[in-house]
Amino acid sequence: MTQQPLAGITVLDFGQIYNGPYCGFLLAMAGARVIKVESPQGESLRGRSETSSASYPFAMLNSNKDAVTLNLKSERGRGLLRELVRKADVLLENFSPGTMDRHGVGSDALQAINPRLIYAAATGFGRTGIHRDYLAMDITVQAMTGVMSITGEGEGPPLKAGPALCDFLGGIHLYGAIVTALFQRERTGAGLVVDVAMQDAVFPTLASQIGALHFLGKHPTRNGNRHAALSLAPYNVYRARDGHVAIICIREGHWRNLLDAMQRPELANDPRFADMTTRAVNMELVDAVVEAWTSTLDKADVFRIAQAHDIICAPVQDLVDVLDDPHLLARGMLSKQVHPMLGDAVLPSTPLRFEGIVPPPLRMSRALGADNETVYGELLGLSPNEVALLRAEDAI
Amino acid sequence: MTQQPLAGITVLDFGQIYNGPYCGFLLAMAGARVIKVESPQGESLRGRSETSSASYPFAMLNSNKDAVTLNLKSERGRGLLRELVRKADVLLENFSPGTMDRHGVGSDALQAINPRLIYAAATGFGRTGIHRDYLAMDITVQAMTGVMSITGEGEGPPLKAGPALCDFLGGIHLYGAIVTALFQRERTGAGLVVDVAMQDAVFPTLASQIGALHFLGKHPTRNGNRHAALSLAPYNVYRARDGHVAIICIREGHWRNLLDAMQRPELANDPRFADMTTRAVNMELVDAVVEAWTSTLDKADVFRIAQAHDIICAPVQDLVDVLDDPHLLARGMLSKQVHPMLGDAVLPSTPLRFEGIVPPPLRMSRALGADNETVYGELLGLSPNEVALLRAEDAI
Repeated sequence: MTQQPLAGITVLDFGQIYNGPYCGFLLAMAGARVIKVESPQGESLRGRSETSSASYPFAMLNSNKDAVTLNLKSERGRGLLRELVRKADVLLENFSPGTMDRHGVGSDALQAINPRLIYAAATGFGRTGIHRDYLAMDITVQAMTGVMSITGEGEGPPLKAGPALCDFLGGIHLYGAIVTALFQRERTGAGLVVDVAMQDAVFPTLASQIGALHFLGKHPTRNGNRHAALSLAPYNVYRARDGHVAIICIREGHWRNLLDAMQRPELANDPRFADMTTRAVNMELVDAVVEAWTSTLDKADVFRIAQAHDIICAPVQDLVDVLDDPHLLARGMLSKQVHPMLGDAVLPSTPLRFEGIVPPPLRMSRALGADNETVYGELLGLSPNEVALLRAEDAI
Repeated sequence: MTQQPLAGITVLDFGQIYNGPYCGFLLAMAGARVIKVESPQGESLRGRSETSSASYPFAMLNSNKDAVTLNLKSERGRGLLRELVRKADVLLENFSPGTMDRHGVGSDALQAINPRLIYAAATGFGRTGIHRDYLAMDITVQAMTGVMSITGEGEGPPLKAGPALCDFLGGIHLYGAIVTALFQRERTGAGLVVDVAMQDAVFPTLASQIGALHFLGKHPTRNGNRHAALSLAPYNVYRARDGHVAIICIREGHWRNLLDAMQRPELANDPRFADMTTRAVNMELVDAVVEAWTSTLDKADVFRIAQAHDIICAPVQDLVDVLDDPHLLARGMLSKQVHPMLGDAVLPSTPLRFEGIVPPPLRMSRALGADNETVYGELLGLSPNEVALLRAEDAI
């Protein structure tokens, strides 16, 4: 079987920055034809991209898409959109709520043209509700959703999680909702309006700390790298000679294995370490014992020994390590590419894998409007001259 | 339209802890019948739950599922699984790779019984590749994937992001892949094997810092709450009288709006703050100016003023704030419930929303094996006496 699961599906991707574009990327890598639709100025991430830190993320998230321009502020541009929508299965966008409606091309207007259209909106706080118009970027959503309140050291300020988790959780939930709507449409024939809020998508990830809040009867402290309720030990990040390793023991057997690995059998009968409860009480001491061992070794050696002893452990890899991770490269999740703008680049494939279906090879992100002639030609039957005229009119 | 999108789909959910169970929860909330299948001892999270911080997360992720037991170590138990698989559309699991195969009920064996079955495996590192057998829990996957290397303060150690983002990114990607396979099956009639690795799912979330790595030509420092490449200011978390607020200016207009809000018009012509580049160079000073304002106000007031001035801002909410967030409650993402084990609890609905389809009301998580009679009765035609016998035999 070589046909991609979403072959034959056409997507208009109005995504910007991370959330919408990640969703569009996943759709493209599952076999949909994804047309990235941008204003004549280019979407925000591209707009900053020529000379900024945005060029690489843009390339990461916009492989395998056609790139067209369309000016929503132009009546002719909006007319083109209405024509494209007749040919499309999905339109996704992550503008501020109401943006498309203000241009007269919101979900109602477009589904009136194509009742089979799945109109999918990704927002910070949703299309409904009292906070829907709050401005939302990853860092402010991290603040609002509680992520910052549980990240950092106890004595330090609330801290941002490094990854743009709100944006990406939003984008992958949007993907899930879109495909759910596509599945339903196979049965009903009707489109749906999809409404995914980053805030909603982030909430479940707080599970450990909400558990700790309930268990402790008070708000848990920020615990750095330790367990949310401080009830597991070892559970921390430990110094190695050349970096750090994470080690966690969730069952008694893990602790016994760790004592074997550390060659500290005499501690097996130490009442301070007798079980999880006493180890949690003596957490400082437990951590000191573990670090006394890890700090004598390179992280790769700690990791190797830990794996051999069935201990849950991993080295702290930095970005350079990750981009060169032999497993990610062997699995094809990452591949070394030559990008027309970036030059040598290591770029991601899709995390959605199906046995017997190889993800499509990466096609590098396209220049702004590079596919105008092809897409407007194929989908709307416009000639190159007509496309040139649209451009001259600032409609695309 | 009131029918849920996945109505009629039957799922066997062997999920444990967060990753698999979150996927099963989303499937249930989209209308699938989800049967949570546990060993006679209960899955890991339930096993720790009666007297630990795990009880609340268990309740969060296992609403709206039937709960049955099934002993994979028993030949009769495995026989029951083979019978259930004939009635199921999806089986999901997040055991260590190879666990189901070792019991003779891996994807090949089960698809031989039901070629329409979608067999979905969530793992740390995938079903293939050189690292597939590495033990994986959220904290070690955070270490391995680079998340820790980009979280924390520059002078501090690599830090865990508070949320269990690897587990939940794994679970929602698994959901997306399963529904993609269901969509494909509508067209082909054939099942698929789904392979989602947490490590793959986390990689894209590093986009900002990978951009910074490429832009700077060296590994970015951990920047606490500041921008990955230190090229935007203001971009930080600032003290308020009663907590903290996040503020970010991504366009010149935002900075001008902020100056208005702070009533500091004289800074508009200050060359140190003339544009993003100079503000980034003078980041310490920019942050001092902003904090001089925020620290005189309560966070709610900063937020209100910021919204009125179209400034991207949010208060840092803690877990208590979030569980009582009026927007999440009004949207129905959270609701106040009475859970048979927990008592009063605020529990999540699904982030996957479709206009015109109200998510099903929450049905509280069930006791271990509570639905054995119903499920084995309805799906396999077993009588209550036969179910009792299976229990006596330790088959369920």
